[in-house]
Amino acid sequence: MDTHTARSRLTSARVGHLATVTAQSQAHVVPCCFALDGDTLYSAVDGKPKTTLALRRVQNIRSNGTASLLVDHYGEDWAELWWVRVDGSARTADTAVERERALALLADKYEQYRSARPPGPVLVVDIHRWRMWP
Amino acid sequence: MDTHTARSRLTSARVGHLATVTAQSQAHVVPCCFALDGDTLYSAVDGKPKTTLALRRVQNIRSNGTASLLVDHYGEDWAELWWVRVDGSARTADTAVERERALALLADKYEQYRSARPPGPVLVVDIHRWRMWP
Repeated sequence: MDTHTARSRLTSARVGHLATVTAQSQAHVVPCCFALDGDTLYSAVDGKPKTTLALRRVQNIRSNGTASLLVDHYGEDWAELWWVRVDGSARTADTAVERERALALLADKYEQYRSARPPGPVLVVDIHRWRMWP
Repeated sequence: MDTHTARSRLTSARVGHLATVTAQSQAHVVPCCFALDGDTLYSAVDGKPKTTLALRRVQNIRSNGTASLLVDHYGEDWAELWWVRVDGSARTADTAVERERALALLADKYEQYRSARPPGPVLVVDIHRWRMWP
């Protein structure tokens, strides 16, 4: 897979799998909606019902500060499998301007966010590395 | 979602998203095939073409020893979303007996493994915690 295809697939994927690390160095992974802007990725803690642990991803990036997000295709013909992964540092949006920009990108991509603006923190992944397969 | 449904969905899912932690404490995530046996989860490094970094997941569990595996359903009707996650400690199969048992379970689940036995290490996740949503 070339980098152009990888970027296109990441941009258009509707759901990603976001890995973070807890303060106790335990691996953690959740599905999330996201939007890509160059080499910056945004995701919001949205209004989907949450358990009490739902903000774990936010706690994790505040204590560990890394994230890895994967999009992939699975099918029973294993010749058709692919995945794209981005690794980077993670933080919550620093400023109101950045938060507004992220929410605008997310609303552009997801009609669902236009009628229900995400109320929670915005996560930002500054991408350091792209990996793709095959 | 009740625990019976969570177990059923994890058991039958064809692909999981396996998060681990690198020796440098960076989050990492890859898709993988897996089989569940009670509260033990097995995955094999199989014959799908690999880049030079493909065994990173094995290095990670040898240095950090934790893993988290997610299965999820995405659809545009967000009322239908769900996910199941298991967190635990991770290792490679300790004995030939355990490796054989894991490969038998994987071959039961995946026809693809019956014709091409996975040549690589078998990863074992001893599950400590189940999480599910909604």
